[in-house]
Amino acid sequence: MKNTEKTMEKIVNLCKGRGFIFSGSEIYGGLANTWDYGPLGVELKNNVKKAWWKKFVQENPYNVGLDAAILMNPQVWVASGHVGGFSDPLMDCKECKERFRADKVIEDWCQENSFDLGHSVDAMSQAQMKEFVEEHNIPCPSCGKHNWTDIRQFNLMFKTFQGVTEDAKNTVYLRPETAQGIFVNFQNVQRTTRRKLPFGVCQVGKSFRNEITPGNFTFRTREFEQMELEFFCTPGTELEWFAYWKDFCHQWLLNLGMRDENLRLRDHDPEELSHYSNATTDFEFVFPFGWGELWGVASRTNFDLTAHQNTSGKDMTYFDQEKNEHYIPYVVEPSLGADRVTLAFLVDAYDEEVVDAEKNDVRTVLRLHPALAPFKCAVLPLSKKLADKGREIQAELSKYFMVDYDDAGSIGKRYRRQDEIGTPYCITVDFQTVGSDTDEADNAVTIRDRDTMEQVRVPISELKGWLEEKLAY
Amino acid sequence: MKNTEKTMEKIVNLCKGRGFIFSGSEIYGGLANTWDYGPLGVELKNNVKKAWWKKFVQENPYNVGLDAAILMNPQVWVASGHVGGFSDPLMDCKECKERFRADKVIEDWCQENSFDLGHSVDAMSQAQMKEFVEEHNIPCPSCGKHNWTDIRQFNLMFKTFQGVTEDAKNTVYLRPETAQGIFVNFQNVQRTTRRKLPFGVCQVGKSFRNEITPGNFTFRTREFEQMELEFFCTPGTELEWFAYWKDFCHQWLLNLGMRDENLRLRDHDPEELSHYSNATTDFEFVFPFGWGELWGVASRTNFDLTAHQNTSGKDMTYFDQEKNEHYIPYVVEPSLGADRVTLAFLVDAYDEEVVDAEKNDVRTVLRLHPALAPFKCAVLPLSKKLADKGREIQAELSKYFMVDYDDAGSIGKRYRRQDEIGTPYCITVDFQTVGSDTDEADNAVTIRDRDTMEQVRVPISELKGWLEEKLAY
Repeated sequence: MKNTEKTMEKIVNLCKGRGFIFSGSEIYGGLANTWDYGPLGVELKNNVKKAWWKKFVQENPYNVGLDAAILMNPQVWVASGHVGGFSDPLMDCKECKERFRADKVIEDWCQENSFDLGHSVDAMSQAQMKEFVEEHNIPCPSCGKHNWTDIRQFNLMFKTFQGVTEDAKNTVYLRPETAQGIFVNFQNVQRTTRRKLPFGVCQVGKSFRNEITPGNFTFRTREFEQMELEFFCTPGTELEWFAYWKDFCHQWLLNLGMRDENLRLRDHDPEELSHYSNATTDFEFVFPFGWGELWGVASRTNFDLTAHQNTSGKDMTYFDQEKNEHYIPYVVEPSLGADRVTLAFLVDAYDEEVVDAEKNDVRTVLRLHPALAPFKCAVLPLSKKLADKGREIQAELSKYFMVDYDDAGSIGKRYRRQDEIGTPYCITVDFQTVGSDTDEADNAVTIRDRDTMEQVRVPISELKGWLEEKLAY
Repeated sequence: MKNTEKTMEKIVNLCKGRGFIFSGSEIYGGLANTWDYGPLGVELKNNVKKAWWKKFVQENPYNVGLDAAILMNPQVWVASGHVGGFSDPLMDCKECKERFRADKVIEDWCQENSFDLGHSVDAMSQAQMKEFVEEHNIPCPSCGKHNWTDIRQFNLMFKTFQGVTEDAKNTVYLRPETAQGIFVNFQNVQRTTRRKLPFGVCQVGKSFRNEITPGNFTFRTREFEQMELEFFCTPGTELEWFAYWKDFCHQWLLNLGMRDENLRLRDHDPEELSHYSNATTDFEFVFPFGWGELWGVASRTNFDLTAHQNTSGKDMTYFDQEKNEHYIPYVVEPSLGADRVTLAFLVDAYDEEVVDAEKNDVRTVLRLHPALAPFKCAVLPLSKKLADKGREIQAELSKYFMVDYDDAGSIGKRYRRQDEIGTPYCITVDFQTVGSDTDEADNAVTIRDRDTMEQVRVPISELKGWLEEKLAY
């Protein structure tokens, strides 16, 4: 019997083989852990982003959108703390010259040796990490020797130069998060939308972090896309709103078909919380390589706006008419990685279903929610003679949806090809559809359901409405 | 009488005042010519990108999409010629220390002095430019003196460092165009989609160019978004396809309401063509600051794929089954700036209409195509007592469209506010809608048209369909 276990290798191969995700710059041997979304991947990821925008902006009565530039004034990153504190502790092996994150080396060593630190490695200072490495004689994971350099901090922001000269004056950073574009525009958005608290600002866009060890396919990459909401509210109401958004985010995942048993919501312990946060929950998803963070929902108090007020000297307060009072709003931030959640939907949807155990017949199905599937349907004419009708139906439905067309090979093979890329509905055009010498045209088609494999006959004139109903979420 | 002339200043003010476009990092004094799209701007620009994707990918039988990474292997830019040749000729004034593009200085001087070069300044070598500047004693545009340094080439690619050390080995570039992400994936896309020629690959994404003189609002910025199509076809058919895409692009602009009198299509003369191109047309739009390039449509022969084949050593040929022959496809490239065309739509739509000359009553209207307008409609209850019904209608329509809600001020003022942001339809909820002590509810609303200001009564149950029809394009 074929092994139907869900592995990253199978998912990566499907992605490369069917055009979801390719290695970046592949013909030049790639570039670190960069990835390009192919014809199907770009549709899937766009559908994820659209689904987020629909629920977080379009339908939500509190929120509006924003799209700030990737390049920002460097003072933004001074205020946000990224220039001073956004760094990883690195150490080199003097023997084999490889470079490692000290915290990772300690974490992995503790796990291998079942050593209980008693706290998270994040709580350790640089000196404490160095001491621990020496005390336990921790070896280099690469060459096995113990001969480490000191630990030093490495800033994770990508640096570039704007203008002609490459000096400190012209240094700018690629944003490491989209959030700050929202904070610096707080007054602009409030003024132009005339919103009262509470209200939120949503943004989708690329961020960059010079990670030492990117990996696990698209889970951790140096260039990645975020979907962030900064929700501004009156101090004292933030924990209510924190609960609201935690539930809202959870429902968003479930409504798009993610299975709850593959998710866990991990509340940060008081000692794990950032100093400015009074509540944080990580949404984690179980990938084949283990649990990984998807969504961070954090109550950040007035930390960010206060930092920008102090650094810029610009007023960041809100005037509360009811209270007749100026104050800096509190913020709840649900922050999600678009690439990560796209990968999670792919992994969650991946299934190998035993169709006939005796014949060792297994089909691969991506059980994606119809709203996320790259193609909403595929038109499959039963004969090449039916191409005109098939193309006509495709052209009409393409005004509303992404529609595939396939006339190559047996109908069974074509179904399997569509199953593998998650197309929820296959539309078969047959001789009854157009009529033949003996039969009258019924102007209807057969729709085959990806998951149940059941078939229904639907008039062509009703196709658009039939599909729209299935795609609603 | 109020001056109703269309100026950049008015458009920039509208953008800042109503939340289309803000200065980037404004609270820190900005950053060169960066801009952030506000709540209305992000919707407008997203609608432009969606409209492009709909016509170029979703409905087009030839094309598929792609989304490649911004960071690519540096060899890509060696092959494409960007490392060697993507540069501006710069010279410094030794007196006032200001830096200028030599070609721009010559161009401006020729225009001011009605001097006919007899050819484009682009055709001049660095030495010829230097000679011309000296021969005509061209002064510094800033201080008026003539004391120039030599001209030197300045590469326009933004440079950054991936990994820990900032050295040549780790230097990578922010892509200066999205096109190369398509070329390097030619085989991946062809293989996974099993497409035969001709077929095209579309991509939307950010690019970066370290321009010396960005300016004219969002027309020329260092960070910008492109919408590019690379269309692969059989050698010998490229001029037919060039004509096809030129017309297709033109129709796309016209179908979205751009006025043809504000456009011109400028074919490159043979001596103006790049050495690899056998046909190029620039689409230009007349902005208040003059004609500016919107869309470049170029027949690029097999230049790009051949360059990548030579540099990577990887096969870039296509196997033509009918001809039983391997060859490198020819390429037609329509390349459009998303920010530029968004600005063009804004400028084209901007109108100040004299409603009543005697009263000096002028209304500002953004006559955007409904498909591009940030809000498709606004719900305006005639009284705050009608809020429940108004909110109910807004919530229902928000499942399908971006819907605004406004209950502040007189209905006339609210209409004007919506006119100014381009909302095509205002939906007024009145006491007839819900019924009062004396009247029965008619469950209908009044829709007021932005352009004609005419009103029609439409049942609430028919609103979705009524709007969908108007938004089709």
